[in-house]
Amino acid sequence: MDRQTEETLPADRADPLAMLFSARSIAVVGASRSEDSVGGRPIKYLRRYGFDGRIYPVTPRYDSVGGLRCYASVRDIPGPVDLALLAVSAGRAPEILEDCAAKGVPTVILFSAGFAELGDGGREAQARLVERAERLGVRICGPNSMGTINLRSGLTATFSAVLERTHRAGPLALVSQSGMYGAYILAQATALDLGLGLFATTGNEADIELSEVLDHFVRDPETRAVLAYVEQIRDGDAFVRAAETALEEDRPVVIVKVGKSDVGARTARSHTGAIVGSHDAYEAVFRQYGLISVDTVDEMLDIARLVDYGIFPAGNRVGIISLSGGAAVMLADACAASGLEVPALPEDVQAGLKRRVPFAGVANPIDATGQLFNEPDIYKEFLGALVAQENIDTLVLFFGQMIGYVEELGSTVVGESVKAARDSGKPFVMVAMPGDGRAARMLKEGGIPHLTDPDRAVRAVAALAAYVERREILLRRRRTARGVDTAPIPRAEVDTEFGAKTFLAGHGIRVTRERLARTPAEAVSRAGALGYPVALKVDSPDIAHKTDVGALRLGLHDAASVEGAFGEILRAVADRVPDAEVRGVLVQEMVPPGIEVILGIKRDPVFGPMILCGLGGIHAELLRDFTLRRAPVDRETADEMLRELRGYPLLEGARGGEAADVDALIDTIVGLSRIAVGTRAWIEELDINPVIVLPRGSGCVVADALIRGRSGNGT
Amino acid sequence: MDRQTEETLPADRADPLAMLFSARSIAVVGASRSEDSVGGRPIKYLRRYGFDGRIYPVTPRYDSVGGLRCYASVRDIPGPVDLALLAVSAGRAPEILEDCAAKGVPTVILFSAGFAELGDGGREAQARLVERAERLGVRICGPNSMGTINLRSGLTATFSAVLERTHRAGPLALVSQSGMYGAYILAQATALDLGLGLFATTGNEADIELSEVLDHFVRDPETRAVLAYVEQIRDGDAFVRAAETALEEDRPVVIVKVGKSDVGARTARSHTGAIVGSHDAYEAVFRQYGLISVDTVDEMLDIARLVDYGIFPAGNRVGIISLSGGAAVMLADACAASGLEVPALPEDVQAGLKRRVPFAGVANPIDATGQLFNEPDIYKEFLGALVAQENIDTLVLFFGQMIGYVEELGSTVVGESVKAARDSGKPFVMVAMPGDGRAARMLKEGGIPHLTDPDRAVRAVAALAAYVERREILLRRRRTARGVDTAPIPRAEVDTEFGAKTFLAGHGIRVTRERLARTPAEAVSRAGALGYPVALKVDSPDIAHKTDVGALRLGLHDAASVEGAFGEILRAVADRVPDAEVRGVLVQEMVPPGIEVILGIKRDPVFGPMILCGLGGIHAELLRDFTLRRAPVDRETADEMLRELRGYPLLEGARGGEAADVDALIDTIVGLSRIAVGTRAWIEELDINPVIVLPRGSGCVVADALIRGRSGNGT
Repeated sequence: MDRQTEETLPADRADPLAMLFSARSIAVVGASRSEDSVGGRPIKYLRRYGFDGRIYPVTPRYDSVGGLRCYASVRDIPGPVDLALLAVSAGRAPEILEDCAAKGVPTVILFSAGFAELGDGGREAQARLVERAERLGVRICGPNSMGTINLRSGLTATFSAVLERTHRAGPLALVSQSGMYGAYILAQATALDLGLGLFATTGNEADIELSEVLDHFVRDPETRAVLAYVEQIRDGDAFVRAAETALEEDRPVVIVKVGKSDVGARTARSHTGAIVGSHDAYEAVFRQYGLISVDTVDEMLDIARLVDYGIFPAGNRVGIISLSGGAAVMLADACAASGLEVPALPEDVQAGLKRRVPFAGVANPIDATGQLFNEPDIYKEFLGALVAQENIDTLVLFFGQMIGYVEELGSTVVGESVKAARDSGKPFVMVAMPGDGRAARMLKEGGIPHLTDPDRAVRAVAALAAYVERREILLRRRRTARGVDTAPIPRAEVDTEFGAKTFLAGHGIRVTRERLARTPAEAVSRAGALGYPVALKVDSPDIAHKTDVGALRLGLHDAASVEGAFGEILRAVADRVPDAEVRGVLVQEMVPPGIEVILGIKRDPVFGPMILCGLGGIHAELLRDFTLRRAPVDRETADEMLRELRGYPLLEGARGGEAADVDALIDTIVGLSRIAVGTRAWIEELDINPVIVLPRGSGCVVADALIRGRSGNGT
Repeated sequence: MDRQTEETLPADRADPLAMLFSARSIAVVGASRSEDSVGGRPIKYLRRYGFDGRIYPVTPRYDSVGGLRCYASVRDIPGPVDLALLAVSAGRAPEILEDCAAKGVPTVILFSAGFAELGDGGREAQARLVERAERLGVRICGPNSMGTINLRSGLTATFSAVLERTHRAGPLALVSQSGMYGAYILAQATALDLGLGLFATTGNEADIELSEVLDHFVRDPETRAVLAYVEQIRDGDAFVRAAETALEEDRPVVIVKVGKSDVGARTARSHTGAIVGSHDAYEAVFRQYGLISVDTVDEMLDIARLVDYGIFPAGNRVGIISLSGGAAVMLADACAASGLEVPALPEDVQAGLKRRVPFAGVANPIDATGQLFNEPDIYKEFLGALVAQENIDTLVLFFGQMIGYVEELGSTVVGESVKAARDSGKPFVMVAMPGDGRAARMLKEGGIPHLTDPDRAVRAVAALAAYVERREILLRRRRTARGVDTAPIPRAEVDTEFGAKTFLAGHGIRVTRERLARTPAEAVSRAGALGYPVALKVDSPDIAHKTDVGALRLGLHDAASVEGAFGEILRAVADRVPDAEVRGVLVQEMVPPGIEVILGIKRDPVFGPMILCGLGGIHAELLRDFTLRRAPVDRETADEMLRELRGYPLLEGARGGEAADVDALIDTIVGLSRIAVGTRAWIEELDINPVIVLPRGSGCVVADALIRGRSGNGT
C-alpha cells in the first residue's frame, strides 16, 4: 500500500521552527479521504506539489488515504516525524500533543479553531495547551493557523484552498497573521507572476509568533525579500531583533499593518498619551529599524516585483525615457512626490540629442515622442546618454501598450533596453503593458520588471532606494553607537510638577529654577532669591492641568503680586478641587521667550518606552506634527526626529526668528531617552510641555513636566 | 470599385464638434495603402470596427485603397463630407483646409505634427492656420492630435495603434491631451474589461480644446462618466461651465492632472504669490466645481468601474461582510481614512447574529470567518441584517480569491449577493479575484463590480459618495445663490499699505484705524487722535516687507516714543533703501490680540482671481495649511474654506482660547471676493497679512495689506 518506498534525507530537527518549511516527514493527524476537508487537503496538496519527503496520514478510520498507509496514532509511525499537522477538534489537541511528544515530533501546526479567538474560555484552553507544549518540548504554530508552504520543495502544510491553483516558486517569503488574507496575497502574487518561496500563517500565535518566523525568513539564503501582513506584534523586542537581522542580511521586509483606525484606549492625563495612538508606535518602529511599511498590498507587491528582479537602486536619482510627453510629466511628478531626483543631463549632451531629434524633450525626462516609431535607433542614443551619467542610479522607461501591440517596436525597444541594462549594470524599470508575447518574454529574460502605472512604479523604486539608503545609515549608526546605559533608575517621588522636574534635573535635564513655598511669606522670600519676575503654580499630585483650575499666575513682578497670587491660587484650588492634596505653591523663574517644544515618553505595550517630540502650541496635538522613536535614541536619531517635523524650520529661525539651540534640545532628547530606558519598570508616561528652546548657545529649559507612573496613580 | 453602395443617414452637421464622434461620412486625406501608416490605419480601423458610414480616401497616388475609391482632392468627393482626417505634412495643411472649406466640411482632425510643439516657428504656423480655419469656418481638432474614436458606432478617426487590439464599447468617455497616454488609458481600461464609448485626443488644441470636448461628453445621453487626462487647461471659464453642466447632467468627471511638481514661476513680493502654485489652483477649481480629481489612472479606472456598474452611493455609510477578519480590519481602516462611516449594527441584531455564529464578528464589519464554507446559509443572514439598516448606504464584501477558486462557494456567495443587491436596491461592491469562471459571470450579470484591493475599492466608493454629496451641495448652493455683483471696480492708488487699506475700507472691509503723517509733530497729533498705544510704519510703494528694513515700530505708548520712532524709521529707510519713495509714516492703532489669518487674491492665468485663506504664522506658508477658491466665493463657500484648514479649531477656541469672530471673517472673505471679481482687470495679487480675528462679536481687522497691480509695479 505505502508508495513511499525510497529513503528520504533526514531533516535537521534541532531547529523546530525550520521544520515548518523543511520537514522531510509529515504526519497529518485527522487525515481524511475527503479531498476538500481540512484533513484531506494537506495530503492532496503535498502530493500535487511534489513533496518528496514522507507523508503519514494518521486516523483510526481508514487503512489508507490516497494510497498512503494510515496510522491509528502518531506513536505508531515507524520512522521519525519532523512535523505534525493537527486537523482535529480543539478538544483533542492536548491528547495529540502528548502523542507527538512521545514520538519526538519537534513541531506541530494546529489548524484547529476554538481557542483564544472565541474569548475568555478559549483563551484559557489555549494557555493550558501552551503550558503543556512547553512542558513536552513541542513547538506549536497556531492554533487557528492555516499552515505553512514551501513552494520550492512542495512542502504544503496547509488546508488553504488557495493551492487549488498552481503557484510559482520564487525568492519571496510571506508571513501573515491572517490565514485567509495571506492566501489572498498569494493569489494576487500569482496573478502578477510573482514567485513566493515560503509562506506562513501564524494564526493565534500561542507559541510561534510572527517575529520568530520573520527572523527565520530573513536568514534564509534563498529568500530575497520578506512580505509581512501584520495585525499585532506580540513581542516587540523579538520583532526589533528580527528587523536588525534583516538589515544585516540585507533582506528588505515589506509590511502591511492593519488596524490604523484603531487608536486604542487613550488616557487623557498627559499630552503624550493623548497624541500617540498605538498605530503611531508601529509606524515609528518600522521606520526606525529600516522596514518598508506600505498602506496596500498593491504597493507591497509592486516592491516585491522589483526585488524579484533584483532592483536595488544605488541612490535616489532617476533617468526617464518616455514615448509620451504626458507620461514623462507623470513620472517626473511621481519622482518629486516620492523624494526621487531627476537630474538634468549636461548641456552638451542635451545639445547633441536635440540636434539628432529636434522634436524630443532631452533634458531628462527624455520625451522620445512618436518619432521612435520611425527611427528606433534614436532610442539607443537616448539610453546611452542616460546610463553614461554617474548621477543617475536607476532608469525608468515608459512605453505604454505599444511594445505589446506593435511587435517590431516592442522587440527593438526591449532588446536595446535589456542590452543597456546589462552593459551598464544599472537597474531598469519599465512602465508598460507588454502583453504576453515576445516583448514580455524578452523583458523577463532580460531582467527588466514592468509595472502598469507610472506613479506606482516610481513609488516602488523610491521605496527601495529609501531602503538602501536607510539601511546604510542604520548599519553605520549601529557600528558607531556607544554602549547604551540600560541600568535601572530607582523610583522617585514624581507625582507633582516639582517632583517630576526635580527628578529630571537629577538626570541632567535643565529645568526652570524653582522652589516650593508653603506660606505667602515663604513665596516672597523664594521669589526674592530667584529674582523677579516669577511664576506661581500650585504643586499637587491631583491637579494635572493647572490653568484649567486657575492655579497658575505668570509674570509676577513684585512681592505684593506674589503674596496676592499665593492666596488667589490656594482659594481657586480650595474652590474648584477641594479634595486635592496641596504640597505647596511652586515659585518659578520666568523663562525668556523661545520656541516651545513638547517632549514625552510613552511606554508602548509592545515596544516599550517611546520618545515623542513635537512643536508646542497646536502643532503636535492638533496638526499631529510630531515624531516618535523607540528608546534608546542617540544624538543622530534625535536630530533626525527634529528634522522630520514639518515645523522644523521654526527651530532654524524661519520667518525672521532667531535660530534656536537645537544642540541643547538634542541633548535633552537623549537625556530623556536615558530616563525612558532606566525607568521602563515604573514610568508609564512622561510629558514635558513645554521645553523652551532658547536662542543658539543659550540652551533649553523644561518649563513644565508631568509623570504618570505605571500603577496609574502618579508614582 | 466602391463598395459603399447603401445610402447612409446624414449627420447633423450644424454641430461641428459632434462630427468628431458622429460623422457619417469621413474623408481620409493622405490615404495610404500601407496599413500601418498614419494615412492607412484610420481606414483599416474604420472598416475593422464596422463603421457603417462612408469612407473617402483622398490621395492622387492611387485609384483605390482597400477596395475604396480614392479621390485626388476633397473637392472631388461626390457626397457631403462630415469630417476630414488630415494625414498630411504640416506644410500641406493650409491648402487642404481650403479644399475642405470649399467642400463644406465642418470639421477636420489634423494628425500632423510640426506646429506649436516645435517652438516659436511652429507656433506662428499654428496661429496662421487657426486664423485661416476661422475665416473659412472650419473647426480643427489638433494639430498633433491622435484623433477621436466612437467605439459605439465604430467611428475610429485615429491612427493610434491601440486599435490593433479590440476594445469593448461602453458608457465611459475619455478625453486626453496626450494622444499616447490617452491610448494607454484605453489599453488599461480594456485590460480591466471597462467599456469606453467615446475617446478624444485634443493634441495642440489650436482650436477645439479640452473643455469643449468635455462639455460635449457630459451632455451625451449614452455617457455615464467622463475621464479626463489633463496637462493644462486653456480656457478656465469654458472649463468651469463644462464642469457646471456635468453637475447638472449628473455625469461624474474623473480627472488626472499632471504637472504637479511644476509649481511655475513664483513671485516673491506677496505671501499669496509665494504660497500658491499653479497646480493648487487646478486642484481648488476641481474641488470647487465637483470634479473628482485623482492622482493615478488606477484610481480613475477604479472609479470608472463602479460608475460602469451604476454604483452611486446615497451616502457615506458602509456595511462590510468579510470572509477574513484581516480584510475586515483593512476595509474599516480604509473607510476611516476615506471619510466613510461603518455604523455598528443595533445591539439586538448583533445579539441575534452572534447566537447564530458565535465565531463571527457581528458589529459591522461582519467577520463571517471560514464558517461560511460549512454553512453558506449564514451569509444570507449577514446580508439581510446589513441591507435592512437604513443607516447603511453601500455594501462592501470581501471574498478574496475563494469565490473563484472554489466553485460551489462562489456560486452561493455571488448568488446571494446579487439577490440582496437587487432586492435592496443598494449598491454592492465586491473585493475579490473571482477569476474568469462562473462566479465572475454571475457578478457581471448581477451588476456587482469587483476590485482586487480593499483599500482601492473603498477609496473608489468614497470618491463617488463624496461626488454625490458634493453635487447636491453645489447644486443647492447654485439654486440659492443671489446674483453676484461683477461690475468692474475702477483702479485706485493702492501701491502702499495705506493706499491698499484705504481701498479695502472703501469696499466695506474693516482695517486698522490709521492716518498718514509727514512730520514727527503730525505723527504725535495723529497718535493723540487715535489713542495710545499706536504703531508706526513707513508708507512706501517700494518697501513691501517693512520689518526687514527696520521701518516698523509697535506698541508706542506716548508722544516721545512716537516722535523717536518717526525719526528712527526714516533714518532706517534712508540707510537701507535710499532710493525708496516715502509717502509718509503711517500712524496706526494697535489691534488687541486675536487670531492672525492670511487672506489673499491671486489672479490665476487660467481661472482668473482666486481667493486664498490660511492661518498666520507658519501655517499657510511653511505648513501649507491654506485653502483656495475661484472667485466669486459666497458665505457658505467661505465657511467651507475655513473649516478645511487643519488649524481651524484655533478659530473655534481650541486649547482654552476664546472663540474668534468667524462670522466677521467670512464677511471679510466674501468682501474680498467681490473685490477680486471687480478688479480682475487690474489687480494681480492682493495680500492681507494678517487680518486679526477678534473674539466672537468683536469683528476682525486688517492689520496689513499689499496689492500688486497687473503691470507688476504696484498700481
